Amino acid sequence: MSRARVRIYEVAAAAGVSVATASKALNDTGRMQEETRARVKEVAARLGFRPNAMARGLISKRSFTIGLLTNDTYGRFTLPVMAGISEALVDHGVSVFLCAIEDDPALAQTHVDAMLDKQVDGIIATGKRIDRKLPVDLSRLPVPVVYAFTRGPEDSVTFVSDDFQGSRDAVEWLRRVGRQRIVHVTGPESFESVTWRSAAFREVMGEDALVLNGSWSEQWGHDAIARLWTDGEPTPDGIFCGNDQIARGVIDALRERGIAVPQEVSVVGFDNWEIVAAATRPPLTTVDMNLRTLGREAGLTVLALAEGKEIAAGIRRMPCTLVVRESCGGARD
Amino acid sequence: MSRARVRIYEVAAAAGVSVATASKALNDTGRMQEETRARVKEVAARLGFRPNAMARGLISKRSFTIGLLTNDTYGRFTLPVMAGISEALVDHGVSVFLCAIEDDPALAQTHVDAMLDKQVDGIIATGKRIDRKLPVDLSRLPVPVVYAFTRGPEDSVTFVSDDFQGSRDAVEWLRRVGRQRIVHVTGPESFESVTWRSAAFREVMGEDALVLNGSWSEQWGHDAIARLWTDGEPTPDGIFCGNDQIARGVIDALRERGIAVPQEVSVVGFDNWEIVAAATRPPLTTVDMNLRTLGREAGLTVLALAEGKEIAAGIRRMPCTLVVRESCGGARD
Repeated sequence: MSRARVRIYEVAAAAGVSVATASKALNDTGRMQEETRARVKEVAARLGFRPNAMARGLISKRSFTIGLLTNDTYGRFTLPVMAGISEALVDHGVSVFLCAIEDDPALAQTHVDAMLDKQVDGIIATGKRIDRKLPVDLSRLPVPVVYAFTRGPEDSVTFVSDDFQGSRDAVEWLRRVGRQRIVHVTGPESFESVTWRSAAFREVMGEDALVLNGSWSEQWGHDAIARLWTDGEPTPDGIFCGNDQIARGVIDALRERGIAVPQEVSVVGFDNWEIVAAATRPPLTTVDMNLRTLGREAGLTVLALAEGKEIAAGIRRMPCTLVVRESCGGARD
Repeated sequence: MSRARVRIYEVAAAAGVSVATASKALNDTGRMQEETRARVKEVAARLGFRPNAMARGLISKRSFTIGLLTNDTYGRFTLPVMAGISEALVDHGVSVFLCAIEDDPALAQTHVDAMLDKQVDGIIATGKRIDRKLPVDLSRLPVPVVYAFTRGPEDSVTFVSDDFQGSRDAVEWLRRVGRQRIVHVTGPESFESVTWRSAAFREVMGEDALVLNGSWSEQWGHDAIARLWTDGEPTPDGIFCGNDQIARGVIDALRERGIAVPQEVSVVGFDNWEIVAAATRPPLTTVDMNLRTLGREAGLTVLALAEGKEIAAGIRRMPCTLVVRESCGGARD
């Protein structure tokens, strides 16, 4: 990758100092040996480094680290978000430090204090559910805070996936491939994501369309098929599943009944969790929440806030994408 | 949970300051408002906080953070390791900051410099393979470094799972439930973990026992069964798989051939990756590498090094545990 613009972290690497030290050297601030400052300036000049005006004004106050807090200890949602944040910020020489908090508020506060102690430029809060807050109050911190895939307070900047749009696209896709008797097999009603996904399903299919709620598991996929095929004719010809694990159970159960997917029944999942979606036979057509992109936006936003820019509060719903594999069949026209 | 001993982070939380500030206040070091110092001391006295002698001597120099570096961006191995580190250190008021590095050495160096800039008390390096080094040299840092589930330099303190012992236990278990024609279906030969697991298999079963190498995937499990059942009689009555995904493919393929697991064939996996192992039908008997325990040990070790203790260099192989579910059948005696 050739890049016209020399980045601060390249200057730092070439001079053998941290990004923070390099920025202080170039801004004639901070304490360091004069030899170090001179070396950084020499390297910057040799590489042709030109800080932009905005960065120049603020650069010396910054620590070039962003803290990421999560209670998703399994990492399924947090790691793609983190990858997106890192991807967005690495060109700015900013490192992302993830700290996992459990549900103990005192310990969570300890970790937040540790981040503030290290003078992070900002904090991003993330989690495993869009309808739950982290067990710590981040509303009065001395650094900017952005919420990504977790619930933030009223006046916060929050990024979540647009589950309604993603689900509507999935159900419309099932319609487009010719399916008419479509049911929705999904997770527990207590999840906001279930509410959004069901609402979209009913918007396309009508208020009386069948929604079956259960657990987020393969086993529930098996059980749902047993129930649907016991209830007698007509059986569904399309199934929109609330997550990929349910979809995997559904597809395995259909195969064991000798029902061909996608020839007789089309199935769509939700999450695009590669390890499940790609191993399903046939591979799963599923909704991707684009968590990496969501992380990118959250990262760029917290950086903009750290640089003093104004960002309007509110919930940003980031678009989902339907990833087409083989469990639905192609468009029939 | 009642605890006789008051921890520094509890004092910090009650006084509304960070752990580092609390320790400085109690040691009459650092810069802070006298009102803050007095408040911390008052809270510590009220709660009955007694620092131990070791901590008292060193506490003021410490930042109460440990940096964790990984190139396992999927997090499958790193998150259990991180959970173990956090669990071990949280009682000491130490926060763990994870930083994900890609394979670019310059960027990796940027992140390491950021950690040093934040004055972490130590660094733990982890990864996705025990036979690969991270793309950055950590051998001459001013803070202690411990390696966990990644390759360290010759003279380092390194923790890895004892794949040989774990595999031997698995194969001996298959023998104990009465299996005689046991084969090993595993991953690519280029992985050191494959070498260890195969060596243990052959130690129990003999040098001529059949080992099939393929990819780390469900599909390879299917393909291996197709090959084994095409080769004609006698077919295996026990299959030790190199990971859980292969085992899942093996079990699904056997079911599709009408072969009962565990009645006709016993299957064991490796990893105890809950999402796969528990969803397999029947649920998978598999080897757990105890990565959480491995993380605990690494965390306590880096802390001991930070406190100036001497720890002998070398590779510690941490024991694995066989988790018995239903894919093997019980002991037949």
